[in-house]
Amino acid sequence: MYRAPVEEIAFTLRHVAGLAGALESGRLGELTDDLVDAILTEAGRFATEEIAPLAEVGDRQGARLANGEVTMPDGWPALYRAWAEGGWNALTAPPEFGGQGLPHMLHVAALEMWNGGSMAFAIGPTLTIGAVEALAAHGSAELKAKYLPKMVSGEWMGSMNLTEPHAGSDLGALKTRAERRGDGTYRLFGQKIFITYGEHDFTGNIVHLVLARLPDAPAGTRGISLFLVPKFLVGEDGAPGRRNDVHCHSIEHKLGIHASPTCTMIYGDGRFGDEPGAVGWLVGEENRGLACMFTMMNNARLAVGMQGVAIAEAATQKALAYARERTQGRAPGRTGEGMSAIVEHPDVARMLLTMKALTQGARAIAYACAHAVDMAHTTEGEESRHWAERASLITPVAKSFTTDVGVEVASLGLQVHGGMGYIEETGAARLYRDARIAPIYEGTNGIQAIDLVTRKLPLSDGRQIGSLIAELRAVAAEAGTDPALGETGPRLEAAVADLEAATAWLAAALAEGRQAGALAGATPYQRLLGLVLTGCYLAKGALAEAGDGRRDERRALCRFFAENLLSEAAALRDRVVSGAASLDAARVVLG
Amino acid sequence: MYRAPVEEIAFTLRHVAGLAGALESGRLGELTDDLVDAILTEAGRFATEEIAPLAEVGDRQGARLANGEVTMPDGWPALYRAWAEGGWNALTAPPEFGGQGLPHMLHVAALEMWNGGSMAFAIGPTLTIGAVEALAAHGSAELKAKYLPKMVSGEWMGSMNLTEPHAGSDLGALKTRAERRGDGTYRLFGQKIFITYGEHDFTGNIVHLVLARLPDAPAGTRGISLFLVPKFLVGEDGAPGRRNDVHCHSIEHKLGIHASPTCTMIYGDGRFGDEPGAVGWLVGEENRGLACMFTMMNNARLAVGMQGVAIAEAATQKALAYARERTQGRAPGRTGEGMSAIVEHPDVARMLLTMKALTQGARAIAYACAHAVDMAHTTEGEESRHWAERASLITPVAKSFTTDVGVEVASLGLQVHGGMGYIEETGAARLYRDARIAPIYEGTNGIQAIDLVTRKLPLSDGRQIGSLIAELRAVAAEAGTDPALGETGPRLEAAVADLEAATAWLAAALAEGRQAGALAGATPYQRLLGLVLTGCYLAKGALAEAGDGRRDERRALCRFFAENLLSEAAALRDRVVSGAASLDAARVVLG
Repeated sequence: MYRAPVEEIAFTLRHVAGLAGALESGRLGELTDDLVDAILTEAGRFATEEIAPLAEVGDRQGARLANGEVTMPDGWPALYRAWAEGGWNALTAPPEFGGQGLPHMLHVAALEMWNGGSMAFAIGPTLTIGAVEALAAHGSAELKAKYLPKMVSGEWMGSMNLTEPHAGSDLGALKTRAERRGDGTYRLFGQKIFITYGEHDFTGNIVHLVLARLPDAPAGTRGISLFLVPKFLVGEDGAPGRRNDVHCHSIEHKLGIHASPTCTMIYGDGRFGDEPGAVGWLVGEENRGLACMFTMMNNARLAVGMQGVAIAEAATQKALAYARERTQGRAPGRTGEGMSAIVEHPDVARMLLTMKALTQGARAIAYACAHAVDMAHTTEGEESRHWAERASLITPVAKSFTTDVGVEVASLGLQVHGGMGYIEETGAARLYRDARIAPIYEGTNGIQAIDLVTRKLPLSDGRQIGSLIAELRAVAAEAGTDPALGETGPRLEAAVADLEAATAWLAAALAEGRQAGALAGATPYQRLLGLVLTGCYLAKGALAEAGDGRRDERRALCRFFAENLLSEAAALRDRVVSGAASLDAARVVLG
Repeated sequence: MYRAPVEEIAFTLRHVAGLAGALESGRLGELTDDLVDAILTEAGRFATEEIAPLAEVGDRQGARLANGEVTMPDGWPALYRAWAEGGWNALTAPPEFGGQGLPHMLHVAALEMWNGGSMAFAIGPTLTIGAVEALAAHGSAELKAKYLPKMVSGEWMGSMNLTEPHAGSDLGALKTRAERRGDGTYRLFGQKIFITYGEHDFTGNIVHLVLARLPDAPAGTRGISLFLVPKFLVGEDGAPGRRNDVHCHSIEHKLGIHASPTCTMIYGDGRFGDEPGAVGWLVGEENRGLACMFTMMNNARLAVGMQGVAIAEAATQKALAYARERTQGRAPGRTGEGMSAIVEHPDVARMLLTMKALTQGARAIAYACAHAVDMAHTTEGEESRHWAERASLITPVAKSFTTDVGVEVASLGLQVHGGMGYIEETGAARLYRDARIAPIYEGTNGIQAIDLVTRKLPLSDGRQIGSLIAELRAVAAEAGTDPALGETGPRLEAAVADLEAATAWLAAALAEGRQAGALAGATPYQRLLGLVLTGCYLAKGALAEAGDGRRDERRALCRFFAENLLSEAAALRDRVVSGAASLDAARVVLG
């Protein structure tokens, strides 16, 4: 059973991601070390004791639809209420609406743990928090006053309605229609698919944020507006009243996260109300809906990244426990009687160490990204701009590398279990199934790579990625001074050089208009950046004096990563700088 | 829907794996090119038209157990009968028992296609064919006369009973007990788990081959005997009579291959018959059971390898079809109206080309392995010994690289589908689930790597791997002469050098007693060999003049592989030669 890795998380936040410095600087207000520990401990306790025990029943029963209503698995509505009553939904929300306004670093740490307990559970609240952010940033005072307090308290949940059958990665193609009424309201008509937690029995109302197009809107992404469409219209008294003309038509039968209802939502077909049309209110300005969504998209991407970290952690814990217990054969050097625990076999140890290193690297990347978000919010001027850029730069990697790691580690974890891994009751298969959505939703990892290469590398004319590379090179140099880290220093320096070479190649390709070439290298580049960040963050952790008696372990894991896994960096650089021509030529194979 | 790739298979058999030469040499008896084409076409037709349409219902319904009896999915018993009546079970079986004695190359080609139609279906017959092999090689004349004709015709199926709860990879630990009776029969008592097709309603009898231990047997693997235990005892008239004391206690709820019943079998608990004990007959000699199993284990491993190839092919077909149809965004260079098919986006093209190249490489490795098996059977003396060694050397790679590729390609295929890939109805998720067992069963891929490094590399004092490397180097040199292959020649030469260096390092480690170091490098080495074989076989195909108008495509795919994917070889070599020390040191992390 999953146990929230509170100590490892606290260590990573403080000594790798930058929380210690941020606390010292006084930027995080009244937040103290003790409070950080208290929050992490309690979030971890909730994940371990409340969420994790309900993960299996959630997977088995799934969310069930009947007559347009979704019934959640046994025990889940109570779980949600306990979670909301714990104040967790309010962690980062604005204090004026009941939130605690805590740093994003704590939020993602808590997210990691809740997702570790059950990804299908944590994704729901995650979306509500995203809806709160969008509304807080762009909603009118009236909308905020009416909806935010109840969304922050968790009394109501939110949902994000973007995708349509022909508009997924390309939102410009969406067709849902919004008509103006004279009274400041709109009527929405259309169909949305893949709407996570679009319908459920957790809360008495659901606040849908919906992208739609006005009749006179320009084509493409510049003609998209954002609307708030509640499931139940809210009266003057603030209580849910009559049903709005929106309903859940069907839910998807998915590979994993079975308890997360993935809904097809129908707006305005006349099922409810006197005349067809779902009543909606504009959020932000007309035709500026995509900009409103972008506000929260970075955070949503990081939140999905936490799912990758969480699944990787859960899979590693499970596999390690099994490998310590299960005995088969005799490992080299074994002298005693009987069989060895399989953890003693070098090949199994390789799998487990790979899992450990990738999980920790993914975690550090995600937390470093959250740190940059917090720094951008708590600094000003040039400094704030730098940190906002840094967050922007790392976000695609914090979404993609982490979620790829989630799949990779879950697959290794299943393998460690041998035949038992393939049996659903063991639980390793659930992690493998759940993990697989994260590289897809909230922008596929391929879309992240395009974003990274075409929009993030050019930030400040390349100086942002340049400053990151300089920092990484400094870590590599420092790693070279610690003999306990073996070849880590030189290996990291070589990998940073690979990253720099690949970056330069992509910059030149973009500058010279070789768009296809740059895009061909985007995914290998993204992985390369993730690997180099992993190596440097493992080294940063290994170099830190935390006084917790685990430094030798961190050094050993860092060295393992540097001397075993980092060699992939050169291959990735090669793919970026030499791969595009043959990729282009080989399109003939694809007909 | 899956379409058996008959032409690609025929090309690979002839021009890459060596079928053309074997046919020319006259070694394959009366087999002609026309007959090969006819068999492949008809096996492909059966896979495409009969098996594939039932894959989805098989996955959805699964095998169902009630009262010890397994009911197969709707339409599946008729499918099996049609398959057996088509004579497919008899393809490679000995002619004296009704078989056609055809080369193994044709068998694995047919296996690929049947598994492409449905892996859950093809695994059943595969095991029967394995049981036929074991019985033909080691059974007494009486046993063979009684059972083989009906097993070869497919009237009865077989099953292989090896694993027990504490004896998986380590069969020496098995506890199932066999007691001698004075009449030449034995009585078996014990429990077997993970028994594929241990119970079903395809056939009127099931012939279980069971590993068990005699009371006076030595401990470990030298005390294991093999027994034939029919579900129904067979009378003098050859008809199934009374029920033997063996039954299916439960079936597993698995991640995938739902229609393949994975049974816990109970032997001798007294449920059937007058006194407890399942009646069995010895196959081969007492205490030599493992040797009997090894006879067929290589072929069974290759058969599982075909599952990897098959799933990879099916996933590639499905993803490519989707990518040609689905439109999103605008690919670089697009000038027309509207959105581009996603296949035009470089990142999607990279995924699909990677899938294509790995699938074709895995196929070629498996067929080359089958070719070696056929050569060993049809040559004599030193030549036969060479080919038997070659088959032995390649088998672990033909099982592991192929099945890892199956998982990797199925995962990429799911990703190409975006959100639709995560929906079960699309079918990409089924391939991802089905694929995941193949790296585990029939010896985990880690066990294959141990076998490769500790037992196969030392064959003929290293001269067998040496001769393979020399052949690969020659292909690399030839590739260097074709300008259409771009950098393929030098890239392959470098990769072959990496393989040679890793081989030498492992040989030295074994010679110097550094067993743990050699085992630490086993899995990366296995992947390295698979990658280099893939590159060389793609080149061999690209250099061949098949006159089918597809040479340019083969050249382009080969070049893509060499210039994009082969760069992993250096990283793998590095892991083998530099990774062991840090892996060993990092065991402290695993507690």
